[in-house]
Amino acid sequence: MKTFATSLTDTVTRLQKIRSQTEHICKPLEPEDTVVQPMIDVSPPKWHMAHTTWFFEEFVLKPYLPNFKVFHASYSYLFNSYYNSVGNRVQRAERSTLTRPPLRDIYSYRSYVNEHLAKLLENPDDRNLNEMMPVLELGLQHEQQHQELLLTDIKYILSTNPLLPIYTPAKTSEKADHVPATFLDVPGGIYKIGYQGDGFCFDNELGVHEVLIHDFQVMNRLVTNGEYLEFMESGSYTDFRFWLDEGFSLVKTLNWESPLYWIKQEDKWHRYSLHGLEELDPNKPVTHISFYEANAYANWAGKRLLTEFEWEAASQAYPPQQGNFSDSNLLEPAAAKIGQHGLVQLYGDAWEWTYSAYHPYPGFSTAPGALGEYNGKFMINQMVLRGGSCATPSDHIRTTYRNFFHPDKRWQFNGIRLANK
Amino acid sequence: MKTFATSLTDTVTRLQKIRSQTEHICKPLEPEDTVVQPMIDVSPPKWHMAHTTWFFEEFVLKPYLPNFKVFHASYSYLFNSYYNSVGNRVQRAERSTLTRPPLRDIYSYRSYVNEHLAKLLENPDDRNLNEMMPVLELGLQHEQQHQELLLTDIKYILSTNPLLPIYTPAKTSEKADHVPATFLDVPGGIYKIGYQGDGFCFDNELGVHEVLIHDFQVMNRLVTNGEYLEFMESGSYTDFRFWLDEGFSLVKTLNWESPLYWIKQEDKWHRYSLHGLEELDPNKPVTHISFYEANAYANWAGKRLLTEFEWEAASQAYPPQQGNFSDSNLLEPAAAKIGQHGLVQLYGDAWEWTYSAYHPYPGFSTAPGALGEYNGKFMINQMVLRGGSCATPSDHIRTTYRNFFHPDKRWQFNGIRLANK
Amino acid sequence: MKTFATSLTDTVTRLQKIRSQTEHICKPLEPEDTVVQPMIDVSPPKWHMAHTTWFFEEFVLKPYLPNFKVFHASYSYLFNSYYNSVGNRVQRAERSTLTRPPLRDIYSYRSYVNEHLAKLLENPDDRNLNEMMPVLELGLQHEQQHQELLLTDIKYILSTNPLLPIYTPAKTSEKADHVPATFLDVPGGIYKIGYQGDGFCFDNELGVHEVLIHDFQVMNRLVTNGEYLEFMESGSYTDFRFWLDEGFSLVKTLNWESPLYWIKQEDKWHRYSLHGLEELDPNKPVTHISFYEANAYANWAGKRLLTEFEWEAASQAYPPQQGNFSDSNLLEPAAAKIGQHGLVQLYGDAWEWTYSAYHPYPGFSTAPGALGEYNGKFMINQMVLRGGSCATPSDHIRTTYRNFFHPDKRWQFNGIRLANK
Amino acid sequence: MKTFATSLTDTVTRLQKIRSQTEHICKPLEPEDTVVQPMIDVSPPKWHMAHTTWFFEEFVLKPYLPNFKVFHASYSYLFNSYYNSVGNRVQRAERSTLTRPPLRDIYSYRSYVNEHLAKLLENPDDRNLNEMMPVLELGLQHEQQHQELLLTDIKYILSTNPLLPIYTPAKTSEKADHVPATFLDVPGGIYKIGYQGDGFCFDNELGVHEVLIHDFQVMNRLVTNGEYLEFMESGSYTDFRFWLDEGFSLVKTLNWESPLYWIKQEDKWHRYSLHGLEELDPNKPVTHISFYEANAYANWAGKRLLTEFEWEAASQAYPPQQGNFSDSNLLEPAAAKIGQHGLVQLYGDAWEWTYSAYHPYPGFSTAPGALGEYNGKFMINQMVLRGGSCATPSDHIRTTYRNFFHPDKRWQFNGIRLANK
Repeated sequence: MKTFATSLTDTVTRLQKIRSQTEHICKPLEPEDTVVQPMIDVSPPKWHMAHTTWFFEEFVLKPYLPNFKVFHASYSYLFNSYYNSVGNRVQRAERSTLTRPPLRDIYSYRSYVNEHLAKLLENPDDRNLNEMMPVLELGLQHEQQHQELLLTDIKYILSTNPLLPIYTPAKTSEKADHVPATFLDVPGGIYKIGYQGDGFCFDNELGVHEVLIHDFQVMNRLVTNGEYLEFMESGSYTDFRFWLDEGFSLVKTLNWESPLYWIKQEDKWHRYSLHGLEELDPNKPVTHISFYEANAYANWAGKRLLTEFEWEAASQAYPPQQGNFSDSNLLEPAAAKIGQHGLVQLYGDAWEWTYSAYHPYPGFSTAPGALGEYNGKFMINQMVLRGGSCATPSDHIRTTYRNFFHPDKRWQFNGIRLANK
Repeated sequence: MKTFATSLTDTVTRLQKIRSQTEHICKPLEPEDTVVQPMIDVSPPKWHMAHTTWFFEEFVLKPYLPNFKVFHASYSYLFNSYYNSVGNRVQRAERSTLTRPPLRDIYSYRSYVNEHLAKLLENPDDRNLNEMMPVLELGLQHEQQHQELLLTDIKYILSTNPLLPIYTPAKTSEKADHVPATFLDVPGGIYKIGYQGDGFCFDNELGVHEVLIHDFQVMNRLVTNGEYLEFMESGSYTDFRFWLDEGFSLVKTLNWESPLYWIKQEDKWHRYSLHGLEELDPNKPVTHISFYEANAYANWAGKRLLTEFEWEAASQAYPPQQGNFSDSNLLEPAAAKIGQHGLVQLYGDAWEWTYSAYHPYPGFSTAPGALGEYNGKFMINQMVLRGGSCATPSDHIRTTYRNFFHPDKRWQFNGIRLANK
Repeated sequence: MKTFATSLTDTVTRLQKIRSQTEHICKPLEPEDTVVQPMIDVSPPKWHMAHTTWFFEEFVLKPYLPNFKVFHASYSYLFNSYYNSVGNRVQRAERSTLTRPPLRDIYSYRSYVNEHLAKLLENPDDRNLNEMMPVLELGLQHEQQHQELLLTDIKYILSTNPLLPIYTPAKTSEKADHVPATFLDVPGGIYKIGYQGDGFCFDNELGVHEVLIHDFQVMNRLVTNGEYLEFMESGSYTDFRFWLDEGFSLVKTLNWESPLYWIKQEDKWHRYSLHGLEELDPNKPVTHISFYEANAYANWAGKRLLTEFEWEAASQAYPPQQGNFSDSNLLEPAAAKIGQHGLVQLYGDAWEWTYSAYHPYPGFSTAPGALGEYNGKFMINQMVLRGGSCATPSDHIRTTYRNFFHPDKRWQFNGIRLANK
Repeated sequence: MKTFATSLTDTVTRLQKIRSQTEHICKPLEPEDTVVQPMIDVSPPKWHMAHTTWFFEEFVLKPYLPNFKVFHASYSYLFNSYYNSVGNRVQRAERSTLTRPPLRDIYSYRSYVNEHLAKLLENPDDRNLNEMMPVLELGLQHEQQHQELLLTDIKYILSTNPLLPIYTPAKTSEKADHVPATFLDVPGGIYKIGYQGDGFCFDNELGVHEVLIHDFQVMNRLVTNGEYLEFMESGSYTDFRFWLDEGFSLVKTLNWESPLYWIKQEDKWHRYSLHGLEELDPNKPVTHISFYEANAYANWAGKRLLTEFEWEAASQAYPPQQGNFSDSNLLEPAAAKIGQHGLVQLYGDAWEWTYSAYHPYPGFSTAPGALGEYNGKFMINQMVLRGGSCATPSDHIRTTYRNFFHPDKRWQFNGIRLANK
């Protein structure tokens, strides 16, 4: 695992803030909301709450806090996610059977682990500190990843309910302005790709290496709902010419006709969000589309998606501006505003699908032991997304951050930015 | 629908008792327990609570209480089960997505409907009474059916949890005596089959008709765990000779090696029950077996199962005695006792698989409208079971009562009684 | 196994006739037609040809012909159907992978076995004769069953081909007359059910027993295409009221809107048959319908299906007349003719769905060994059909003959006769 | 479509040679072999024969031969593969229902089209020639691709037969020598990737572009059966550490324990090939492994797979030598020989899995119309393979040739070459 400088005081503060943020996210939920799993990709919120806690118990408290007793002997089995090294675990598809332990026990579990982490950090053993701090930081980053999943999973869970419940009311309902699309030049050349700083990063960002980029142009903002609607209304969902073959099959099999969460009522398109059902705003960024839809849109528009290397090069040419992250509590992507310059929405709002498979960088290597399972084993059949979304914590993102999903996934806040030759 | 004599006071008393019994059954549950559906046959307890309430709202209050306003406009959609006549409904497999309305709303719903039923019955309109009372009675019988399902569904839900939680502690832990199996004669002849009384019965018991029965013998008690264990240990689960072909395929596909809920730990068989995991008592009746297993057992034992007509004839020859029903709160079948005469356990303890398909009696006809959908449309591919179980309310059973399940179902308290030529 | 009188000369003649009939049926086929399995219920014709031959090799030649050498060591494995006793076998779903041995080898196999059977019968060992003759007869009956399956499987195989090939040209194209439906009385009483003769019958017809039948009426002929069309055109395929619940689900899942093989072209209904695509004749019997459709039709018509006991009683009251069997080479059900009396089409034309589950008769027992596996293990989830069809050999049928299929099966020549009251 | 210089005489010769080669491949088959489809990836040989012919009929004869009449009106529907532009077609999974037209009709179809192609080329219209020749060439390349698939599909079809039939006897049975593995340096730098010649290439090789390659080493030969056996015998198929997560799931679900076609008999590993079952030769290259297995092997060996760009760079540094292609008629990969220099087996023997997703090159564009559907729409979820195999025609390959399969596919002659740092 990468080691890096970090301050103990900072970590204590961040630990408190991040751990309580998870509970803040779950506050509006009913106990029943926290246990179901309406599709395989979604995890029950209770599971997220327990699993992020288990991470600290398993990888920090057990090895580093002397005489630590686990909260419950079975929790390691119940709340391990995919770490084969740590032993047996509940299979992903069976997470929704875990009605017990009840939610209040999970809150107790969280408190118990928080208290013991506080105790550990009050009086740390200097010899362990260098080894432990990166693991602790990984635990925090891991919890932030699950915070994003919590929001998208809650959205999915509530959306399957015929009552279309409101998770939290919208902060504002003003309509967005129309900002025209333009294309900005990115000069070709040899770019350094991968994380070069001395803070935290994931193993998949390491293996800094040079990549030869060719001249190209990049769109100033994300594709909007209105632009996507044009694509839909031109009959594109039934026109094979724009689609990858597997995507077109999927469209037919699953009867896709619009992004996820779009609902037509009385001839008007609406969109379900964490604020309930709202009329579609044509100037806001389109999200909840698969890679197949993003790519078909690009083909229809006569453009293409960026590669992840082009995206990173673009972020060097046009450094990202203040983004709309989960900290804003908007919980929806915001529209670009008239008068903004450079690459708007490069950070936040919506993850941007790239036409790059999620593969190892040259020299990629995994850490030994359970934590080495973190990223490498998923490096097949998934596509890279860049830039973070409105559900990402602002201090969790970097321009080198590589998110990844299978090309058919739609329940994340994923959007489209186009490249031009 | 069959009409029958009933007293208004009795009905008011039973309504109160039966409705509160449902809540009593759900009391030990966590909210999370009430929303999940770990297999398609199981319904979420919250759904049972709401659906039984919806029945009264839809079929009693809406037609008969003037100016009645439904509790919530969407509940008819949410909590209809299979009544095509009543409009759209949530599909069975999607019942587990209903995290909302939360449990407390369902309790409010139940109170609301109870109060309006009380109001309706305080001051009934004489003209409607004849028409309404049978529907009300059907609602009560319907709720009792769901009480049995509640217990078996709760058992299944909790059993899928690795913690094997206790629903309610056992009342006793004494071991049962061994009672030898004997066979009692039932004389052949023409028997009247079907309900002939003037109380309530389901439409599928009507069409009283004569059936010619041939001489046979019937076992004095249910088959025990110990007897079934012998069958298992003789290698029968891998010996095709005892099995119906579809049953044997199932055994191989699903890796069945024992009844549902049997778990081997440290070389000893245990059984999960609503009281948690317990060591197997060899003298208690075997339950949670499919028709395939019951029939294979009978073949192995050189006997056979009864037909439903033979069962009913046997109950005329040896009227059933005091049974172990849900009223006893044992929630497990009890063992036969030394010194009992006649057909022990004919009522209660375990439903007895018969080798009769669930088909219409001669002259069977369905009521018009939604309530006519009740029983007739399930008359294919299911086998009849008789006699009630430890999860059946004692005032819900009759010797003419026809329960029915597909031959592969194991989550009910189903057991085996043998016939001899 | 039942023993019965039979003459050696007769058997030799029948053996020759029946064995060559199988080859006659396969003559119009291309080698490719003989290997495919477009659905799980259909077996490749080459498999039928080999399997019926294997039966004689395994159960007659191996035990009774001294020094007999099998044709090929692997054929027992390849062409066993479902006899668990005989060892491993190719699974049903994998029969279509058997491109080898090629068709000409199967013909050689048939000749080889025929020649050895002839040799065996030329000079039979008197001590074995009593034991062997019933097995030989069973082999012939078994081959006749497969002849019917051959015709229905060939029909299904060819029907999946977009070219809709003709198996054999129609012998005639005259239109049928309209014969009105009437209902004939069958008096109630105690009837003897089951085979009482001294010829061959299957084990499932044994256990002759008395059954009490109640007065009823039976339709004089089979339901016609025209009558069924009325049912279709009244919207019945989308009206749940007429359907068993599992049937209605199936209708929706599989998009059934008409019997199998019905195709609408230019607003006219056509029917694919072994003679190719033909315009629908409204006066011919409807076939290729499931039990669900037969029962829904009966409900729609305000009638019901017979039980198998009623059917057998009716055949005692109105003995069957000359039937349209496979011997006629029509290979389609023929229409009733004006002026016919009694129960027309009781024999031949189309198997008649009854509302009786295929269960054992009282006292049913299976023969020991492999041949005992013949019928008993299928006695679940299937419905009885009676009377034979246009694909049944005329000397294969009896009034006590019990055919059986799952209620969703449509590829056999199955039809509808109604009961009243 | 790319245009390129070609001579008419050459084309006529190659047309004759390639078309008759397809028939040569099918000669040892029984008609039944040519119709089945034991898994979805495999097409029936009859279909291959017809489909390659249809390509010429549809794209060459129909547009360019005046007054041409198609052989049969339905064949366009029957033998279109995936060209959405050309109209409806038989779905992939239903190809095995095409028992008709019979094999001899397909031979007639081939002759008919061959004759008309000859006629067209005897007397070509100069105005069309420039447009037609590339299409004709594409048809030849297309047929060569199907020749490779024919061999691998025939192998798969025959392998599912319990008789393990021999397609053609082996030409030799000598054992191979052991050649040690060494690693050769490839210097980093900017390489030109993609086809730069003036002959034929596929659209996916175009978009020549520069790629920055870092210094690496490449193994001198393919990984052998013996090396792979070591990997197997060290328990790697059950050790998650070497596997991509989706691969490890697959291994468990499908019970993979060895490459496809490996069979253990009497404690010795054998391998089914087109020559029947043979004992495993440890010095021959391992084939019929998935990308998951190739990558797990590389991890276990402490090496890695090449990217497709590294492979192409290596082929520039060490130009490929004489390869073992289908022309040799060995139909199995041959072992490296002692004394060979450079990169052995770079051409032929086995396709080499790379760790590169099959994505478009910069500036990739598809041709308009049906032929543009050829390659682009498959650019997702597949991995690139390079170098050709023992089933590839020698004049079909280039160092820039990009083959592609999903990472779980094993029925092609796919093998492993390792990279070091």
